[in-house]
Amino acid sequence: MSESKIKPWTDVSAHLVDVAMGRKPADLVVRNGKWVNVHSGEIIPATDIAIAEGRFAYCGNDASHCIGPNTKVVDAQNRYLVPGLCDAHMHVESGMVTVTEFTRAVIPHGTTSMFIDPHEIANVLGLAGVRLMHDEAEAMPVNVYVQMPSCVPSAPGLENAGAELGPDEIAEAMDWPNIIGLGEVMNFPGVAANDPVMRGAINATVRAGKTVGGHYASPDLGLPFHGYVAGGPEDDHEGTRAEDAIARVRQGMKAMLRLGSAWYDVAEQIKAVTEQGVDPRNFILCTDDCHSGTLVKDGHMDRVVRHAIAQGLKPITAIQMATLNTALHFGLERELGSITPGRRADFLLVSDLAELKIDVVYGRGIKLAEQGKLIADIPAYPYPDSAKNTVNLLKNMTAQRFHIDAPSGANEVNARVIGVIENQAPTKALEATLNVKDGMVEMDRKNDVCQIALVERHRATGGVTNAFVSGFGYTKDCAIASTVAHDSHHIIVVGSNHGDMAMAVNRLAAVGGGVCMVSQGEELAMVEMPIAGLMSDERAEIVAAKADILTAAMREMGCTLNNAFMQHSLLALVVIPELRISDEGLIDVRTFEKVDLFV
Amino acid sequence: MSESKIKPWTDVSAHLVDVAMGRKPADLVVRNGKWVNVHSGEIIPATDIAIAEGRFAYCGNDASHCIGPNTKVVDAQNRYLVPGLCDAHMHVESGMVTVTEFTRAVIPHGTTSMFIDPHEIANVLGLAGVRLMHDEAEAMPVNVYVQMPSCVPSAPGLENAGAELGPDEIAEAMDWPNIIGLGEVMNFPGVAANDPVMRGAINATVRAGKTVGGHYASPDLGLPFHGYVAGGPEDDHEGTRAEDAIARVRQGMKAMLRLGSAWYDVAEQIKAVTEQGVDPRNFILCTDDCHSGTLVKDGHMDRVVRHAIAQGLKPITAIQMATLNTALHFGLERELGSITPGRRADFLLVSDLAELKIDVVYGRGIKLAEQGKLIADIPAYPYPDSAKNTVNLLKNMTAQRFHIDAPSGANEVNARVIGVIENQAPTKALEATLNVKDGMVEMDRKNDVCQIALVERHRATGGVTNAFVSGFGYTKDCAIASTVAHDSHHIIVVGSNHGDMAMAVNRLAAVGGGVCMVSQGEELAMVEMPIAGLMSDERAEIVAAKADILTAAMREMGCTLNNAFMQHSLLALVVIPELRISDEGLIDVRTFEKVDLFV
Repeated sequence: MSESKIKPWTDVSAHLVDVAMGRKPADLVVRNGKWVNVHSGEIIPATDIAIAEGRFAYCGNDASHCIGPNTKVVDAQNRYLVPGLCDAHMHVESGMVTVTEFTRAVIPHGTTSMFIDPHEIANVLGLAGVRLMHDEAEAMPVNVYVQMPSCVPSAPGLENAGAELGPDEIAEAMDWPNIIGLGEVMNFPGVAANDPVMRGAINATVRAGKTVGGHYASPDLGLPFHGYVAGGPEDDHEGTRAEDAIARVRQGMKAMLRLGSAWYDVAEQIKAVTEQGVDPRNFILCTDDCHSGTLVKDGHMDRVVRHAIAQGLKPITAIQMATLNTALHFGLERELGSITPGRRADFLLVSDLAELKIDVVYGRGIKLAEQGKLIADIPAYPYPDSAKNTVNLLKNMTAQRFHIDAPSGANEVNARVIGVIENQAPTKALEATLNVKDGMVEMDRKNDVCQIALVERHRATGGVTNAFVSGFGYTKDCAIASTVAHDSHHIIVVGSNHGDMAMAVNRLAAVGGGVCMVSQGEELAMVEMPIAGLMSDERAEIVAAKADILTAAMREMGCTLNNAFMQHSLLALVVIPELRISDEGLIDVRTFEKVDLFV
Repeated sequence: MSESKIKPWTDVSAHLVDVAMGRKPADLVVRNGKWVNVHSGEIIPATDIAIAEGRFAYCGNDASHCIGPNTKVVDAQNRYLVPGLCDAHMHVESGMVTVTEFTRAVIPHGTTSMFIDPHEIANVLGLAGVRLMHDEAEAMPVNVYVQMPSCVPSAPGLENAGAELGPDEIAEAMDWPNIIGLGEVMNFPGVAANDPVMRGAINATVRAGKTVGGHYASPDLGLPFHGYVAGGPEDDHEGTRAEDAIARVRQGMKAMLRLGSAWYDVAEQIKAVTEQGVDPRNFILCTDDCHSGTLVKDGHMDRVVRHAIAQGLKPITAIQMATLNTALHFGLERELGSITPGRRADFLLVSDLAELKIDVVYGRGIKLAEQGKLIADIPAYPYPDSAKNTVNLLKNMTAQRFHIDAPSGANEVNARVIGVIENQAPTKALEATLNVKDGMVEMDRKNDVCQIALVERHRATGGVTNAFVSGFGYTKDCAIASTVAHDSHHIIVVGSNHGDMAMAVNRLAAVGGGVCMVSQGEELAMVEMPIAGLMSDERAEIVAAKADILTAAMREMGCTLNNAFMQHSLLALVVIPELRISDEGLIDVRTFEKVDLFV
């Protein structure tokens, strides 16, 4: 059904000319559409397009000369011909599914090009993990380009990930056919400080003629921002205010506005265009992170474009931000992003432009989805066993490993507690006075203090970091463990009793990773993610359903947070203040220093 | 004074970050300017810029932290900071001067980037000639990129130029550091017909990741246009009507609008933007051909931008068309086209934006011109002798070689006559009845029929093609000879008597080429062009003055045409109808066939 490989334009250019001239028949002709022309900004009625070898050969008012006896002819019935949508920056792993399953899920939503940053698998499996997703991406019937992860580990010295990537690895990956550039350069202080790893990674990318992705996660538009800009990143999706977008565009960067499952950064920033009149050409839309549930229930890039239009953008301008602008940014203007000769024939039949009602999705000239249903047969990608056995514990976990010994003779202790903040990624560095019983520090359920542990899982060191956390509101005996534990992806386990914590961890080890919730020895929820402990090999619908069960279980145990699992999975992210946990210990991210559990 | 080499960004990126952060001093800080921001489309007051290593390091509201004891500080006095202007397509040879002299002439007009197509020298000296201009271009203190000539000779089979360039030569040149893409693909029927040379040239360029320049010189927007577009050209400067520009943009090409010495294609086409609302991002300004006199008297890209503004474009939009749009088109967005960190510090201090009054021109952070005067010392480029001895005659020319024998026994003949049309490039295929005296056909001065000859000069074959021409209106005994003889650049001599014709040709052979006018054995005008017979090695002012003398001499001899020398130099251009002359004979360009002199 689908052809996964497209020939280079140079191999088929002569054929495209022959088709355009009517000397050879097209494979597909679509007649009588409204051409949404992202180059001219026009919508041109009564347009025909002719396609051959997966690319547009002719776009104009009459393609009858391109029709031969075997040409498939489709009547667009005056619907809009819209270029396939591009997601300019995203992490497949956020969907907890493989590239293949992610692709299957988003094609019906009109996404035909993705720029994925496999940062998570890189932290587990290093360059080999990136290569796996790179190769899987190449096999897709739509365009999935890979951004080489730039910051692995995210916080050198404060954590030990499953791998380290330096400038040499980055330079090596720049030669891979499907690597489009460098993924979000998150270490923005490192860029401004000329950290040699960051400098080397960026220079290697620029030398390769590829695009440097940015990630300036700070509201400070003063010197640190200017230092970061001078360092070379070419886009940024971490802005939240109109002034952030404007500042980036003025400096020659692209403002990437994201609408993800938990990111809502389009509405404010798009005011730069709708209210302040900034040239829209340097604005690009992306999702960054989408959970399976969002893909299944709400959509993907269609949701983003629709949202942007709802903010007051002209439909054609919003579409440019998800097509032509993206293609240009990555140097792919000859390959995709518009319905014009030579480009890959990725396009949508749309019956309502402002609502972006997508009736049919074509990729490389092949009908892939219709009325929201995938038609294409996209076989699962065979991940090797090496990618599936990544939960390496020294030995079976026991409840005793979560005992926290009090200082000798103490009756109570003053302990540091990681404080989760509703709807925010930063945490609070709290303190709590906790009882000691039999020499062991006790949790305090009525004050919402339970235990958190980071269990090392890459090198089977047997390491466990124990600490306290507040904010989940667990009121029952339970524990939840996850091998999705940004960014180094050990195991984060949070629990209100040690036995459940041990069981949850052991269950993950048994299935090769994922998320597991148990209560009093009973398994309440399990989302298996055997690939690197990050991704399921099941369908997005199934993963979404399992995630729903997990969410319900967390709620059942007393947790009322909006994005409870996301909060859980971010508690080891030792680059965002204030207090986090890592395999190195408890980290104060205000000072980037390891601190004692007891004050 | 000027530094001709700029280091790669990757060599200086760490330094730029240090300057932006205030850790190291800038070389130059310009304070208090109005930032013409071509990315955002804004004009931002009270802007400082800091420059180091020839590149912008900081652009923002306060660069005081970038100033050290040795930093040069300039007060912009609230003038506009405008990116240096780009000429997206042009032929240096049209100025009859070297790259160096052309550059010297245009810098005071704000041009800091040129994309030159050395098509003329390629017809004389082949790849070696292109390389000479390539190397000269690289030595300039501004950015001069070279487009590899695509059609040498222009009309294979109908003429023999000094060289032939095929796909292999084009592929070879694509590896040269300063080659930016393929020059205007003029053989548009060949592209649509999949001529293997054209197909090979374009594919070689695309494989190298470079830009394919177009040249679709036809008003037909039907199938031949669509076939051409499918073939791969990415821009076109041959449009003349708004519908031409719109058609090109819709197909994903850039509409290059030109204002040259004899091209006036901006005013009509820009209506696509000003009246029809087409997105301006895919419009680019260029000159294509400028004579020395235009450069000296009227300007260069400043003239084009000023003209575009006068047509109703917003100044910022017109400036985008000569800066950012051009840089993007050639994949140079990290290097030039805007005042933003990392880019080459090419910028103008402008005291009136709508009038584009340029007070100061900086290139790579160095002041190059002020108040219309060049400051930079740009030494002449040493062309080798091999480039200076290109007028190769078998032997001294004699008047007898221009005798045209009548058919045996004829008293008069009916001869084909090339008819020059005022202000147009095409010619008319005329016929005239001419007297025969002593077996020799006579000219007919009172009916404005004089002789034209094409004298072979590349391989010293001794070949002379004799024919008749009408339209110059020479009323006196005279002859004018030129080694600028598009596109194969033999010698075109037009005269009203054979002796003067021989003398004019011999004079050119003596000086190594150029244009020479003689009358009754006296030299009236001479523009020496020893480099390939196409370019002077003198200053543009001197060449312009000599060209003025030539124009006056032609007028003195009775010629009243507007662009008399241009008309003369185009008479061997065997790709434009109707009747032309070549070393192969008299060519009917309606049928692309050689025809007899006598009907």
